[in-house]
Amino acid sequence: MSDFKAIGKAFIDFYYNKFDTGPRDGVAALYEPVNGMMNFNNADFAKGAQEIAEKLRSLTFQTIGHTVSTMDIQPTYDNCILIVVTGALKADNDPPMQFTETFLLRCINNAWLVINNVFRLILHG
Amino acid sequence: MSDFKAIGKAFIDFYYNKFDTGPRDGVAALYEPVNGMMNFNNADFAKGAQEIAEKLRSLTFQTIGHTVSTMDIQPTYDNCILIVVTGALKADNDPPMQFTETFLLRCINNAWLVINNVFRLILHG
Repeated sequence: MSDFKAIGKAFIDFYYNKFDTGPRDGVAALYEPVNGMMNFNNADFAKGAQEIAEKLRSLTFQTIGHTVSTMDIQPTYDNCILIVVTGALKADNDPPMQFTETFLLRCINNAWLVINNVFRLILHG
Repeated sequence: MSDFKAIGKAFIDFYYNKFDTGPRDGVAALYEPVNGMMNFNNADFAKGAQEIAEKLRSLTFQTIGHTVSTMDIQPTYDNCILIVVTGALKADNDPPMQFTETFLLRCINNAWLVINNVFRLILHG
């Protein structure tokens, strides 16, 4: 898979554009609907499109913007794509916060979908 | 796979203990020897045990210590384990730095090995 970097970068651009412009159900639709998993700054994960959509709808900020600082992209042994992003986000009128987010993408029926996702805010010590 | 959390936590404890006590070739031995990949704070990855060992030997610090702050662990659709760590590390006499590190583990011949790894220092804006 020679084009994993281009696919990964395009997916991340698309994902954060969806996240930052809404509606949030559009973000949930980017997950594999049955086994897709998302940890959102918490050790318990949501699994499947319905739980992920509920989790995203429960987030209390009204506006959000993601800025990517670094993006590392690797192919996996079975043609999935692993992406690790670090960056900053701004929610409502809060100060910017740094975050890291990992995505494992799988191609299913010619569409790239998230099968695993972990989001964490970076807490400054 | 009901025990993915215990396996993931034990692996991370073992990995950082190896990293912090050396020798570094012992860390490289935790990677799948042909297709294992490691990004070390750089967009280009090392692939395979030899490249990974060379990369680890090239790191210039003499002493290192990792402290884990958060660890999120998910099973994947094909019985691999995805782990995302955030934490702090201290190299030599430098001030502590925050980092994020993602591991994808695969069980090969009854041993859990790293097939994908991405390490990034968090740069404070």
